Amino acid sequence: MIFNPDDVTPLYAQVETRLTSAIADGVLPVGAQLPPEDELIAEFGVSRTTIRTAIQNLARRGLVEIRRGKGTFVTTPKITQELTMLTGFVEDMEALGRKASARLLDHAEVPAPEAAATALRLDPGSLVMRIRRVRLADAKPISFDETYLPLELGRKVVGNDLSSQPIFTLLEQKYDTPLIEAEYRLEAVAAEPMVAQALGIAAGNPIFLIERTSYSTGHRPVDHEKLYYNGDQIRFTTRLARRPTNPGRGFR
Amino acid sequence: MIFNPDDVTPLYAQVETRLTSAIADGVLPVGAQLPPEDELIAEFGVSRTTIRTAIQNLARRGLVEIRRGKGTFVTTPKITQELTMLTGFVEDMEALGRKASARLLDHAEVPAPEAAATALRLDPGSLVMRIRRVRLADAKPISFDETYLPLELGRKVVGNDLSSQPIFTLLEQKYDTPLIEAEYRLEAVAAEPMVAQALGIAAGNPIFLIERTSYSTGHRPVDHEKLYYNGDQIRFTTRLARRPTNPGRGFR
Repeated sequence: MIFNPDDVTPLYAQVETRLTSAIADGVLPVGAQLPPEDELIAEFGVSRTTIRTAIQNLARRGLVEIRRGKGTFVTTPKITQELTMLTGFVEDMEALGRKASARLLDHAEVPAPEAAATALRLDPGSLVMRIRRVRLADAKPISFDETYLPLELGRKVVGNDLSSQPIFTLLEQKYDTPLIEAEYRLEAVAAEPMVAQALGIAAGNPIFLIERTSYSTGHRPVDHEKLYYNGDQIRFTTRLARRPTNPGRGFR
Repeated sequence: MIFNPDDVTPLYAQVETRLTSAIADGVLPVGAQLPPEDELIAEFGVSRTTIRTAIQNLARRGLVEIRRGKGTFVTTPKITQELTMLTGFVEDMEALGRKASARLLDHAEVPAPEAAATALRLDPGSLVMRIRRVRLADAKPISFDETYLPLELGRKVVGNDLSSQPIFTLLEQKYDTPLIEAEYRLEAVAAEPMVAQALGIAAGNPIFLIERTSYSTGHRPVDHEKLYYNGDQIRFTTRLARRPTNPGRGFR
């Protein structure tokens, strides 16, 4: 297999990328055993160290599992989640039969970053409550969430146990703040070091980033979030209609 | 600035990631000049070569522009595209006031990959028409598209000039195949070498991958696509309602 000589990407990363696409394309399906090291060395024309680094990275990303004395196997596929309604993480995971949990990293009153200030209609530099959590499904980190709440609401919310209580539930059931709809921005980005560390992945790995502003009655913005999903762990599905003539059509 | 010593990512890539987040977060807004090399060397505590490699990569990704003798500047932001209706690339770019074009890479009759066969309801290994194009906005590569069409329809479609004629238009206006709706799968993935080469980016860069199956009347699948968007160039927006009681609500 010939690598592009102009590519400055390290060889182990190139091997890793090739194996990742073989898994994504189903050439190496779930449960399949990876070829033995010697075979990969011959196939890719690289050193044993390079192959091992690539496989260790795949294992760290959760794509393969190294079973000692048995070999390396392709693990369970990405979580497939519908993106058709405004729902919170716990609702999403429960709908998929997975156990949701959260690790609260910190909360603090901070000057609102530009995007959060704009979304919450605050003056630049206004204080907001920032809550940072890692969200897990079946004890595996799925996303790193930064939540920005207006200060008064935020101060009430952080009085609760945020490792067990979803913020959406608190807003709707305890603080009389019904959620009506949300605006989403969807992007693919490379993991910043802090996000990577929170998710237990390497910096630069693909992140499915959702920036979401949720609105209560009267189109009042009450919650701005940056949800950094581990790209290796999740995919989203939706269904869109060709014509606007029948607006409800096709949205389940 | 202290880097994580356990991180095996090369230093230039770590610097690149930090600068990318500074741009994404608006710390370095569009039009801003990057600090001079000497300042970056002091800030990051790395060599001049490392800083230069990082900046060259940012330039290649289209995030900054190096103006000789003047400095390095943050370039125009991502294209922001609505994901609320089934639309083709040309329609999308025209709605944004950008000039869409396409570079046809190749077309071929190939055995359908598993996902395409399933989507088009064909037996595994059935021949399909695969069309590969690079889609450009204002002459800048935005996405690499693999289109899979049922063989009979595909043979007709490739008789046209696919660098100027959108496939959606051909299906609807020339081949009596109205499009009704589509199923979407959205993922963040690392660029495979072939995709990276087509988009002129480095392997491993973030890709916003859309797998889309479009249906004609009678829920007949007629087109399966893998759209690899350069994650540095695009973001998608949508709007979702909290409750399913009013299905049209909030979808524009």
